[in-house]
Amino acid sequence: MSKVETMRWRDGRLELIDQRLLPERFEYVVCDCAERVAEAIRSMIVRGAPAIGCAAAYGIALEALRTSGEDHPVFDATLEHAFEVLARSRPTAVNLFWALERMRHAWKRMAGQPPGLIAATLLEEAHDIFAEDLRSNLAIGERGAALVPPGARILTHCNAGALATAGHGTALGVIRSAQAQGKNVSVIAAETRPFLQGARLTAWEMVQEDIPVTLVTDNMVGYLMSRGEIDLVVVGADRVAANGDVANKIGTYTIAVLAERHGIPFYVACPLSTIDRSLESGSAIPIEERSPEEVLGFRATRWAAEGVRARNPAFDVTPAALVTALITEKDTVTRPEREKIERLFERR
Amino acid sequence: MSKVETMRWRDGRLELIDQRLLPERFEYVVCDCAERVAEAIRSMIVRGAPAIGCAAAYGIALEALRTSGEDHPVFDATLEHAFEVLARSRPTAVNLFWALERMRHAWKRMAGQPPGLIAATLLEEAHDIFAEDLRSNLAIGERGAALVPPGARILTHCNAGALATAGHGTALGVIRSAQAQGKNVSVIAAETRPFLQGARLTAWEMVQEDIPVTLVTDNMVGYLMSRGEIDLVVVGADRVAANGDVANKIGTYTIAVLAERHGIPFYVACPLSTIDRSLESGSAIPIEERSPEEVLGFRATRWAAEGVRARNPAFDVTPAALVTALITEKDTVTRPEREKIERLFERR
Repeated sequence: MSKVETMRWRDGRLELIDQRLLPERFEYVVCDCAERVAEAIRSMIVRGAPAIGCAAAYGIALEALRTSGEDHPVFDATLEHAFEVLARSRPTAVNLFWALERMRHAWKRMAGQPPGLIAATLLEEAHDIFAEDLRSNLAIGERGAALVPPGARILTHCNAGALATAGHGTALGVIRSAQAQGKNVSVIAAETRPFLQGARLTAWEMVQEDIPVTLVTDNMVGYLMSRGEIDLVVVGADRVAANGDVANKIGTYTIAVLAERHGIPFYVACPLSTIDRSLESGSAIPIEERSPEEVLGFRATRWAAEGVRARNPAFDVTPAALVTALITEKDTVTRPEREKIERLFERR
Repeated sequence: MSKVETMRWRDGRLELIDQRLLPERFEYVVCDCAERVAEAIRSMIVRGAPAIGCAAAYGIALEALRTSGEDHPVFDATLEHAFEVLARSRPTAVNLFWALERMRHAWKRMAGQPPGLIAATLLEEAHDIFAEDLRSNLAIGERGAALVPPGARILTHCNAGALATAGHGTALGVIRSAQAQGKNVSVIAAETRPFLQGARLTAWEMVQEDIPVTLVTDNMVGYLMSRGEIDLVVVGADRVAANGDVANKIGTYTIAVLAERHGIPFYVACPLSTIDRSLESGSAIPIEERSPEEVLGFRATRWAAEGVRARNPAFDVTPAALVTALITEKDTVTRPEREKIERLFERR
């Protein structure tokens, strides 16, 4: 288990670590309504597909509690609006829509009940989503750790850690579990421009856990692989299509291409809630394009020349053929493809 | 021709644009001895293989002029020391050693002549090296432009521009010449962490020339290629081995691997002075490892977590098999290999 409490429910409100400020400052932001949670997701106070899903669920619960004194027409309309606002916050991570869908089902099951009771039920559902994600991460960690050889030098990209989930992490969950088994691993963290989740968040999590971590810029990965300095790659995912194509933080695809060239295993760790069986392939996954400002510098510092434009796609798609295995809480799917992924859900 | 005067000889001293400060500040640093030039190379006030070669030649001339009032034993010893100091400034770009070798030959040809005459000759040799590099870049530009289709969207990495050479640039020389021919190209500049030469220098040069330029982080290149948004790649080089393997700014190898996967031409533009026929292959090229501090943040800003280590290899090696063509002032070598490269020199 990690020591990081990415989000917590306190006194009827949701508290989120402000991940934009890490590692310099460790502060919680307090959200008391769905709009505040949506804004926290949009601005990346909270990020990481599973964490976004959990936060959105709590956003619905917050809105329901806040409006539970109203009569049904007002309560229903307010809640419906909260679903819309949260669904618009970010487009790529499917866990957001998955969590909202679960919350909507919980709501519909309670049709006709008093708003106060619905609100209490929705809060329970959000707590359940959070608790299940934590359990999933622990299971993913255990399954993934079995794939990690002793002394492995593990490359990871972005942050698929405790900060990106309800706790433990997906990719970093694998690393934490491997380390807990005494495997004596070390981590190479790609800094992950433009938001620097690798440098700021993954490095910070690893330092907290005393797992040796070396930071590199994103463009150094090819060099390290060509020198035999990386034994395996493990990353998280924002959305996996029915055929196993993986949308994840921009740069993941490049790492997968390099890993294939160098014969290095490329693992994707994610809960089933990240798999979107409604999309045939990765080409159908919507890729968020964020503000060019993030590329022109970092935070308030701008270093790019005046007059230059920028692109800022936040994710890319790695074809299933480049994925050695998909590590889920249910099973590890080697060489993922449609039928194998479908089976994960059939056996549930 | 570019409008940028990367270095200039004024009143018996060498003036260098301080490239660490661009694009925010445009300032010249004045060097009056070899040690100052070596320090400017080490600290990246001046960078880019051909520019480093030119600066080192002027460093020798400065030292000879400064000591030309001395008798031979003192003059000789001082000059010898200058060669050693400059040769230790940076290890990867071979143009440095090539230029020093030319300066040493010029010195040896004048053996026994009065120090003042030797100094004047060495200054002439430095001016020649500078003028030849400029001519080479213009020739490279013309040759390279022939490979550029109208409307091409051209990816480049780091800065192989006027700032990296005596003027015009190698990779950016190709782009400048293509644009001068009315080819209506546009440039995608990879920002090139950690020193951000793409964001700061290449973007700045392109904006000066009114060539449309879009900045991306290094990890976005794979995404753009997968979407068909890049038509060709052109980069410079710091050292090319006898077999055509290319050492260039860290990240170049990754781009070459991606270009091959996507069937996109990958061109390397460099003068013959960048080709080191004494090394059989790229594995023999020394790769500079710079201070980890550069990776932990940028300039005075540090964003990485406390306690994290970093790696900082400044270059990587792209195997010749990934190079579509080597564009030199003498000829364009498609699918470079030992015999073709040797022929470049035989026909000289």
